[in-house]
Amino acid sequence: MPDKRLIFATQAVSFMNDKSINGFSKRSKAEKINWLTETFLNGDQESANLLRVYWHEDEQRQKRHDEFIENALTNFFLPFAVAPNFKINGEFHAIPLVIEESSVVAAASNAAKFWAAHGGFQTRIISRTKSGQIHLNYSGESAVLNDFFEQHKQQLKQSIGTLSKGMEARGGGLVSLELVDQTAQLDDYYYIDAKFETADAMGANYINSCLETMAATLKSLASNFSGFVPETATPEVVMSILSNYVPECLVEVKVTCPVSELAQEGLSGSEFANKFVRAVEIAHANPLRGVTHNKGIMNGVDAVVLATGNDFRAIEAGIHAFASRSGQYCSLSTAKITQDEFEFSMQLPLALGTVGGLTKLHPMAGVSLSILQNPSAEQLMMIVACAGLAQNFAAVRSLITTGIQKGHMKMHLLNLLSQYGATESTKSLAIEHFKTQPISARNVAEYVVKHQQDA
Amino acid sequence: MPDKRLIFATQAVSFMNDKSINGFSKRSKAEKINWLTETFLNGDQESANLLRVYWHEDEQRQKRHDEFIENALTNFFLPFAVAPNFKINGEFHAIPLVIEESSVVAAASNAAKFWAAHGGFQTRIISRTKSGQIHLNYSGESAVLNDFFEQHKQQLKQSIGTLSKGMEARGGGLVSLELVDQTAQLDDYYYIDAKFETADAMGANYINSCLETMAATLKSLASNFSGFVPETATPEVVMSILSNYVPECLVEVKVTCPVSELAQEGLSGSEFANKFVRAVEIAHANPLRGVTHNKGIMNGVDAVVLATGNDFRAIEAGIHAFASRSGQYCSLSTAKITQDEFEFSMQLPLALGTVGGLTKLHPMAGVSLSILQNPSAEQLMMIVACAGLAQNFAAVRSLITTGIQKGHMKMHLLNLLSQYGATESTKSLAIEHFKTQPISARNVAEYVVKHQQDA
Repeated sequence: MPDKRLIFATQAVSFMNDKSINGFSKRSKAEKINWLTETFLNGDQESANLLRVYWHEDEQRQKRHDEFIENALTNFFLPFAVAPNFKINGEFHAIPLVIEESSVVAAASNAAKFWAAHGGFQTRIISRTKSGQIHLNYSGESAVLNDFFEQHKQQLKQSIGTLSKGMEARGGGLVSLELVDQTAQLDDYYYIDAKFETADAMGANYINSCLETMAATLKSLASNFSGFVPETATPEVVMSILSNYVPECLVEVKVTCPVSELAQEGLSGSEFANKFVRAVEIAHANPLRGVTHNKGIMNGVDAVVLATGNDFRAIEAGIHAFASRSGQYCSLSTAKITQDEFEFSMQLPLALGTVGGLTKLHPMAGVSLSILQNPSAEQLMMIVACAGLAQNFAAVRSLITTGIQKGHMKMHLLNLLSQYGATESTKSLAIEHFKTQPISARNVAEYVVKHQQDA
Repeated sequence: MPDKRLIFATQAVSFMNDKSINGFSKRSKAEKINWLTETFLNGDQESANLLRVYWHEDEQRQKRHDEFIENALTNFFLPFAVAPNFKINGEFHAIPLVIEESSVVAAASNAAKFWAAHGGFQTRIISRTKSGQIHLNYSGESAVLNDFFEQHKQQLKQSIGTLSKGMEARGGGLVSLELVDQTAQLDDYYYIDAKFETADAMGANYINSCLETMAATLKSLASNFSGFVPETATPEVVMSILSNYVPECLVEVKVTCPVSELAQEGLSGSEFANKFVRAVEIAHANPLRGVTHNKGIMNGVDAVVLATGNDFRAIEAGIHAFASRSGQYCSLSTAKITQDEFEFSMQLPLALGTVGGLTKLHPMAGVSLSILQNPSAEQLMMIVACAGLAQNFAAVRSLITTGIQKGHMKMHLLNLLSQYGATESTKSLAIEHFKTQPISARNVAEYVVKHQQDA
């Protein structure tokens, strides 16, 4: 007869080894943290406690943040900063930036200050249209589908009447509805392209609700359309969703100044301008550089997007796809010299909102919008584009003069010193020492150990 | 004689209208907040106070966060959650996710649970090489530059000896150094391509320091090389920097199961699988869909990237450029059916680190890595890729069955109800009401006002 204690022990071990769980989302936050601590943190109370240390002391406030997403356990702090001195179309702004990377805020501030003294940023909205698609399979005659679509276009539009009432009152709504034949790209593939204006909202929920409603209407209309041969050639809705590719939701930003005003870091204005233009040309010619060049632009863009409660994944996807629209991924920005005038500019697709989503729900997103003087969506597009161009100007300026590492390594050194537990006096000495010595994690670690042993 | 008071008043107004500032970065946090409040918040103490409300109560802890970037004023809270039940290469994980968008964590959790019951995620590392470039202008004979490079290649490599000592001890370092002629793309443009392995570090600082050091060495060697004709044909370094395009730092992830096991939401296994494959084909054929499809993948990817203290702008840039490598932007993931077996997979370029940068400095990034069992950089690449594929599976599953809005609108409705100040009893009634009525900001606002007036 087996020893009962042994069976129990084996079961216990088997339970402990089982790292899966049922009904996790329904457990309380405390229960979730307990399970996580036992299952993945070897019972380490210090880590578990860190999760609680980052709770806001005001329970109601914390609850609000916990409600944004599912399974929320705590808050991840991202630093919130401002970069002042952005002169945009003649008005000064201080731009809120949420970002974890050092040097970005300093770079944005420096570029803003430089351009404030040279005319500032000039921006304009080119267009504000977004689109969504109802994707269809259809194996019948193209002309029949076309007839069906044209006959029922009005009914499709009318089906979103109630949904669109509020949006139309704010000046937005459905702009156009077209059937697109893509059978040359993929057998039996058509889509209905719906274009929208969404006023000051980003509009994702509105557009998706409209598309799903029109898709349901289309299904019902199609099933009653006598032109379709049932079973084999009735259009089938595969899916309905907005597109994050928004080349018609476009803002332009530029800075210009006489070449002579660009003299700096031992370069004449003309040397600086030529080298700058060359660096941007390289980012157009070589995707290895273009990707990183644009990443620098996104450091500025995403920091404002995050600060204002917008969705940076949507913005990133739309912008990088835009950067590849010619068939080769390349720089978003362009620099040129025309008759001793330097011009640096770009166009950016930016589907942003200043109402809806998190913009009003996240208290800090609200503060960001207040700091920006409660901008319209169009004004926010312009501000974000300026943050991106400023960032890009600063990065290219560093690259062609002192190198990118001078600024980066200063912060990196301080971070490494903190990490290796350097005292304030060791920090001061290390800063002097590493002005002439190569900074690497190993070198800094060795310096701290050696110096603090000696002391 | 002018009225002195008038002059004073005019100056005061002029001062008040001047929204620019000198030496902002050198001011204390309190001074920065005061200036911001007076200049851009019309003196509104409520907004100013919100900045302080989000400070951590432990001053030392707050200081640590303030040191990450310049001009930090407070913290922006992003929700930190976990999605359990990720079975990856046979082992269970709970994945930390930092994201502000509702539905993402629920979707990841659901997809993880489904696939845990169907064999789990299979992943493998394809390669781990990153690159950086020294970009050159050179108008002389190509052969001369080539001779110079080959003769001095060893010296260039040796110049980074001290910098590389630590990295080499950890199994990384410079892998190759090649001169690339790109004069066909851009006149007089060459670059030196340096490939690196960086062990468990993302390696940006290491790579950039190596490139800048080699560039300085190259300058000095070039000025002494007799083959170059001075002034007109000596190579000029334009800039030196790593690339965020990392198609050779690649991970693969896939899930497979018999088609029959996919039956759900009223669709047979075969119907579901075929519709799913079709949806992914559409994301390959039409960039309007491809961009949004990949945005869904990035919802999962970025949430882990943020949680572990990595740089999401670098990851975003590298991945979207990779999605456009064929000349047309398209889906990152691929789905197929082979002999009644469904397979869904993707390859993702992911330059991630589990040491260096913020990974050890941000306490919550440390907790994330602990929850993930302190992974190597390779293991983290695999985990991130799984979060991306899970997210993509869940999104496409929703799109081809119930539609994306069903899940989204449930959270959206709750958010709108909170925003319009609905009481708990109004909330319950509204949830019932909007099961059959179209949800829009206007409709919800009207419902709340009407109901709470009646009550």
